[in-house]
Order: sequence, then structure tokens, then C-alpha cells
Amino acid sequence: IACDNSRMNEAADRPVEVIHLSGCSFSSSDRALVRVQDLTPEKADQLIWLRARIHTSRAKGKQCFLVLRQQQFNVQALVAVGDCASKQMVKFAANITKESIVDVEALVRKVEQKIESCSQQDVELHIERIFVISQAEPRLPLQLDDAVRPDGEGEEEGRATVNQDTKLDNRVIDLRTTTSQAIFRLQSGVCQLFRDTLTKKGFVEIQTPKIISAASEGGANVFTVSYFKTSAYLAQSPQLYKQMCICADFDKVFCVGPVFRAEDSNTHRHLTEFVGLDIELAFNYHYHEVIDSITDTMVQIFKGLRDNFQTEIQTVNKQFPSEPFKFLEPTLRLEYTEAVAMLREAGVEMGDEDDLSPQNVTYNCICTHFSQYDTDFYVLDKYPLAVRPFYTMPDPNNPKYSNSYDMFMRGEEILSGAQRIHNAQLLTERAIHHQIDLEKIKAYIDSFRYGAPPHGGGGIGLERVCMLYLGLHNVRQTSMFPRDPKRLTP
Amino acid sequence: IACDNSRMNEAADRPVEVIHLSGCSFSSSDRALVRVQDLTPEKADQLIWLRARIHTSRAKGKQCFLVLRQQQFNVQALVAVGDCASKQMVKFAANITKESIVDVEALVRKVEQKIESCSQQDVELHIERIFVISQAEPRLPLQLDDAVRPDGEGEEEGRATVNQDTKLDNRVIDLRTTTSQAIFRLQSGVCQLFRDTLTKKGFVEIQTPKIISAASEGGANVFTVSYFKTSAYLAQSPQLYKQMCICADFDKVFCVGPVFRAEDSNTHRHLTEFVGLDIELAFNYHYHEVIDSITDTMVQIFKGLRDNFQTEIQTVNKQFPSEPFKFLEPTLRLEYTEAVAMLREAGVEMGDEDDLSPQNVTYNCICTHFSQYDTDFYVLDKYPLAVRPFYTMPDPNNPKYSNSYDMFMRGEEILSGAQRIHNAQLLTERAIHHQIDLEKIKAYIDSFRYGAPPHGGGGIGLERVCMLYLGLHNVRQTSMFPRDPKRLTP
Repeated sequence: IACDNSRMNEAADRPVEVIHLSGCSFSSSDRALVRVQDLTPEKADQLIWLRARIHTSRAKGKQCFLVLRQQQFNVQALVAVGDCASKQMVKFAANITKESIVDVEALVRKVEQKIESCSQQDVELHIERIFVISQAEPRLPLQLDDAVRPDGEGEEEGRATVNQDTKLDNRVIDLRTTTSQAIFRLQSGVCQLFRDTLTKKGFVEIQTPKIISAASEGGANVFTVSYFKTSAYLAQSPQLYKQMCICADFDKVFCVGPVFRAEDSNTHRHLTEFVGLDIELAFNYHYHEVIDSITDTMVQIFKGLRDNFQTEIQTVNKQFPSEPFKFLEPTLRLEYTEAVAMLREAGVEMGDEDDLSPQNVTYNCICTHFSQYDTDFYVLDKYPLAVRPFYTMPDPNNPKYSNSYDMFMRGEEILSGAQRIHNAQLLTERAIHHQIDLEKIKAYIDSFRYGAPPHGGGGIGLERVCMLYLGLHNVRQTSMFPRDPKRLTP
Repeated sequence: IACDNSRMNEAADRPVEVIHLSGCSFSSSDRALVRVQDLTPEKADQLIWLRARIHTSRAKGKQCFLVLRQQQFNVQALVAVGDCASKQMVKFAANITKESIVDVEALVRKVEQKIESCSQQDVELHIERIFVISQAEPRLPLQLDDAVRPDGEGEEEGRATVNQDTKLDNRVIDLRTTTSQAIFRLQSGVCQLFRDTLTKKGFVEIQTPKIISAASEGGANVFTVSYFKTSAYLAQSPQLYKQMCICADFDKVFCVGPVFRAEDSNTHRHLTEFVGLDIELAFNYHYHEVIDSITDTMVQIFKGLRDNFQTEIQTVNKQFPSEPFKFLEPTLRLEYTEAVAMLREAGVEMGDEDDLSPQNVTYNCICTHFSQYDTDFYVLDKYPLAVRPFYTMPDPNNPKYSNSYDMFMRGEEILSGAQRIHNAQLLTERAIHHQIDLEKIKAYIDSFRYGAPPHGGGGIGLERVCMLYLGLHNVRQTSMFPRDPKRLTP
């Protein structure tokens, strides 16, 4: 479908501010824009067109030095009074506000000394024409260079860093930094690796509803929605629906979607809305088939990140240094009682059935003790039945324990999972034991009345996985637009 | 990590009801389960283990005929009094309720006459041992065979079909039908094709928040959420966040996630919660670059379904016959005014700026007229500005029209999109024109103050795409757990 030029130009021209300085005609249809990352010595002496942001700008006599940026790539550019540029044009270029988007026509020139401050170190651009495509307001709420400065660096020179709330309040600018670009490209990779691994294993992707009629786990920590003339809730997890899909013969399912928790927790690791990477599968003989399936998926993600996202990892490390993420094959799996024994040996007093929760003082101890295994990823298996939800399958050998597990990255929990009770009668008994109103979970229990295979699964928090893989310290850094009890914007 | 056998058995045994009849020991660790679809003549005379559902059961003298089912595959099986089975075992087998899950040990036998009623037509199983893994309650709320019967078929014999509400009320059973299995496996394919196509084109997947602080499009049709001591809303689309990502230099983004509409519409095509496949991208010179990117993505999806999901398509067609989905390359694009001219020629009275909405009587006319192009997929471009949201870019050549478009499958809208205004000043003017409270959309407008490239995009409804591709007539058929003003369960 051909477009006539006149219409094309006008669509681009209005309301884009095009300020045309060199007097040549503006003919865009045959103009190919190059990418900054492709500006290498091979392009030397070529006249090219480029669209980029003004990253910095510095006027110096009859010259104006610009750094032009596209995502994590940037290149030095020069407007100098001479054949191509008038004095007026140099002044014009120098006055373009930082973060404005410009189109430039420029000659690529090899440089003798590497330009250390730019990603494209071997060439610079000699600008012949420059157009403003979109003008930024002159006062930026934060400076990109400040936002990527490692803590403590440049303090002596009085250089600023940007605090987290300022970054989040001005996320559109903060997301332009090399660190943010790397974090969210890596996050996109985690989702893709998760899905591709499971698809190869024969899993089916499902879509589960987020508006639900009843809060299945008793109603705590759930957001209420006005639903026409009645009330509804936001799903705290897709678990019921994943399990229904197993009862409906989908055999192995996964889903990626938002999960909502109305917890008033203001910590580095809690969000009120996060992205759940959820897995559920029928197994043949033992719930460890489920654990193996999940840990192998995580290992595939770790390998994929290590092999395909080194640039991103190193970019983030520049601002937030951390050790490379370590993992074992097969994944280390320890039983809960082993962990308790290790802690007792270390002098920690705790009961057999005390929860090893992050709120618990023993938590940090256990992380330290596990360090002997030289892995940043492990599974803790067979939690005490008393600390797990009512639908958790009890351990057939010891009713004090359960067929349930948590998974940890760098000592913090990223997944909680279990074999689920698939028998309506046992499920009813356990619900009564937990004093749950049977009427409210009727639909859930009824799902198991028409034949259900043994099954299990778990839910992974995407933001936590990204945070801990990269060795970051706040889950808000790996959520594009984080939601917590105090933050609903932007 | 090795598991000892005793624990494995017990984990499987309890609370699974294992009823052991043949007297042999139950040793599961080295027992490989075969899949029904792999039961072919090559396996003749082998003794195999299989886990499956009892699809049907019919006792006849000293024999009991079973049909064993796994998803869309099934096989005939026989328990007969003789060397392997006692009279008691035949009686036991005959009494196992339909939809129960069983483990059987059986000899695979070639049959002389094809078994037309089963997917595995060349073999049957001679059962030697049978265990009940999970027992279904004897009274099923619906029969699977009834649920897949085409409308009208078997009416003379007095055979039942199942109405949609009964199906949806008992979705766990309804999803076991061949039709449902095919629909949702195809739906999983649509998501994968969508993402894979865009990833190859250099798009980045983003995750956008669903709980938002302000209803950006004026507050109509939005669900309210109680958020701690304040109120929030459920996002009607990820558009604002997609646009912020473009302003944040992600260049090309997509997301797949729930979208919420508090519309009291009880039609075949409306849901209050559906899955949005959303795209947004910066373009260089003309918003038709955006249209081309989206239509090419759709074409890749159509091709992927045609080439890789024929079994699923034909399975659905058995119950719901329809013509194969037709599309052109490049995609047919017509201007709104052309459509209006065609309708006027056909005698329809309408104004230049009347909306071609599904509510409009002219809608069906236009579908009929477009049939001359022999495609089930087309784009209608350049809608009147007056019928589009305030953030839509006006047509620079004719301010009565806009740089906006809808896309249609089999005559029904599946996508609405546009070039967005990327200039804060023009956006403010348009919002004022639409009498929108500027205070409420301040964050949105501010996103464009620090340099924004020209960009556009659109949102596709996953359930509609699946419904229309398969030629179905109700969007509830392609939503696993549909939500509408009257349905919140299961």
C-alpha cells in the first residue's frame, strides 16, 4: 500500500515541531534512519540520517558539541561554523533542550582518539542539518547521569544521586537510564525464558480471571471491587483456576499475570500488585516430579540470562555491583528438619514447627548456613503442616509435616508451592480444621468431585526473581510502575 | 536427587484411593506410563501402563468395555473374565464411575475392524490390572458427549445438548471436551504467535499495572477498588503505560494482560474482563508504519494457526462448522470515507461523521459490502475525529478526520488504535475540547513534556480473535472463566 509523499510529510510535520535550518527540502520517504549502535568506522565518510535524543550539549566558541543518545547507545556530534553550518545554526543547536528528540543529517568521521565517554568510541558525527522532532521542557525533574551514579561515587565533587521516590515519581525519565533499560529488557527475557521452557515441556498457557466472587483463602489481604450492584475481589493468586485446569485435563499449565495482595507491608520485597509466573501440573507418582519441573525451569532461566543477557547484567552491575548468580545442577534440595537441625547446631533456639519466615530472626541465620553449598538457589522441602494453607497435602509419613516447599534466591523466598489436596473429602476436613467457612469455598471443593489427578505447583514473583538475580535490594527497582500501600502513581 | 520407593508409594497412595485387585505388588518407581495417543499397532502385544479417565463403561455378560480418555484421545479397553481377570474384577471395573481416573496394566492388541468411535482405531487394550486413582461422583452435572454435540444433531433420537450456562457453571467438566481442549490450546497458540512475532521484530515485553489511581478516559465504565484508606480503579487498557514506555525510549513494546470494562453490556461479544494483546511503537514518518506492523503481526498469527493448529481447528469445526479464515497479503486497508461512499451507493443514509459501530444499523451492511474483497480481515482507516478519544491525532489534511483505525475479523471489530498525540500542548487543547478534567489526566499529559517521539498502537481482544478466527458466535466460548455483568463464577 503506497502512501503519497505529501501526506506522509504532513503527518510527520504536524504537530511535530520541525525547525528547518539548512534550506534543503524535507523529503522523508526515501530517508533511511540509521541506529546509533551501527555507527562504526565502516560508516566513515558517509552522510547519514539519525533520530536521537540530545543527551548533553556544550557550546564552545563557534562549535557546539552534542552527545546523541538512543537507549543505551550514544555518539558524539559536532555542529561547527563552516561550509555546512551558519553561526545561527550553531546557536540554534546549542539551545535545544536536553532530552529533546532531533533528526540530524551528518557526516560520519573516524576519530583519532577514542571517545571514552560514549558507547560509539571510534566515530563522531559532523552535523549538516538538524530538526527538532519533539522539544523537551528546559527544566528536567532529574538528570539521567545523576540517576545512574553508583551510591557514594562523586560525593566529593558534590555530585548528586537521585533518591528512589524521585525516580519513581518521574519514571518516564528514570526508565531512559542505561540501568533501567537493562533491567526491563532482562525482565522481558525472564518472561520469555519461563514460557519457552514450559512450552517445550508440553505446558499449555492459560488465562485466569482476576475478578473473583469469593476470597478463597479466608478473605484476609484481599482487595474489594465494586461490581455493578454487588462486590467482588481481586485474585490473590491464580491457584484455584490453575487447579481447575488440571481437573479439566490440561495436565500441565502455566500463566503469567498480575497478582494482588492487600497487605499493608512497606518493605523492600513487598508490592500490592506484582507479576506472578505460575505453574501447575499433574504428576504420576511423587510430588518431587513437580519440584523437579519447577527447579529445572528456573535453571533454564538462569542459564538463558547468563548466556544472553551479559550486556544487561554488566550494565546494571556498573551502578549496583553484585556477585554473579550461582546455581547448581541438580538444584540443592534440603528438608525443613535438616535446616532446623543446622540452626540448632548453630545455637538458634526454635521449635520443630516454627515457620522459617523472613519475619523470623532465624531467617538470616539459615541463609548464612546455606552458604556452604555455594549456590544462590535452593529448595526447602517438607514444611510443617501447621504453617501452610489448608489445601496443602499432608506428608503421608508424618502428619506434622506437609508435601510443600519454598524456593529461595540469594536467601530470599521467590516461590511457595505444594502438592495440593485433590480429594474433596480430605479437603473439606482440612478446611474445617482451619475454621474456614465451607460455603465460601464450595466451588473450589466441588472442582475435585469429578475425578482429579494428583497435582502440585507454585507461584513465582517476577519482580523478586529479577531483583535477586541482579543482586538488587528493592523490588521497586524491578517493577516498572510499582504499587505499594503508599504508591499508586504514576 | 533420589527418592526412596516407600515414600513415593505412600505419597501416591494417600489420599488417592488405590484399589488393588490382581494381587501383584504395586511398584511404581520403574513404571512408565504411556500416552493414549501413542497406542498404535507398533505397540501390539506389549504390556503397558496407562493413566486415563473412564470416558464410558458398558458391561456385557462376562465382559466390560471401557473407553479410556486422555484429553482429545481415547482408546477402547476390555476387562474379560479369564486368565487375567476374575468375575469380581469385571464387576468392579463396570462399577467405576464415569470420569474417574484409573491406572491400568493392559496388553495392547491389534483389532481387525477399525474402532470408529475412538481416536485410536487400530488397537484395543486387554486390561489385566486396574486401580482407581481418583473416583468421580456418580452423578455428573453434564455429559461430555452431550456437550460436544452439534446443534440439532441427534434431536430425533431425543439426545440432549447442553446449554451455555450449564457448561459455564460446570466449567471443570466442560473444559474436558474435545472442543474446549482444542479452543484453549489454540488460544495458547495465539498468545505465543503474537509474542514471538513481535519479539522477532525487536519489541520488548512490558508489564503494566492494573490498579491505577485515576480513570484516564473520564471515569466512565471503570471498576472501583478499595485501596487501603483510599479508592483506586482497574485499568481499562494499558495504553497510558505503553505510551509512557515509548516516552521512556523502549521504542517498540507489547503486553499481554487483563483489561477491565465496567460496561453493563450483555452481548455475545462483551466481557467485563478480557485479555488484551497490546502493541505500541514509535514510528519514523507515517502512522501507517504502525498499521503495517500490527497487520503483519495478525497475518503471522493467522498463518501460524493455519499451519500448526489444523487438528484443533477441525475439532472445533466438528461441533461448530465454519468456513476457513481468509486473509490477504498485504492486508486490505480502506478509508472510512470509502466505506461510507459504498454504503451510500447501496442506499444507506448516513452522515460523513456517523460512527460505524456495531450498534449502528449500517454495520452489517458494511460487512456485506466488504465481502467483495474476499478477506475476513481488513483495516478501516481515518475515522472521524469526533468519534475517537481525545488523545487521537487529528488528520493533518482534514481536521474532521483522524489518524485512527479499527481492524475487523469476519466483520467484527477486534482492534481499535490510532496515532496518539505526543505533544503536551495539543493534548491539553484536545482534552479541553472533550471537556475532560485536566487535573485528572495531569500525569498522562506530563509524560509528553520531556521529549516524545511520534507513536501509535492498538489493543486486540484475545477472546474475540479466537472466537472470530474459529467462526464461533459467543466470546464466552473462548474465555476459560468468562466474566460478564451477570457472571462472576466459577
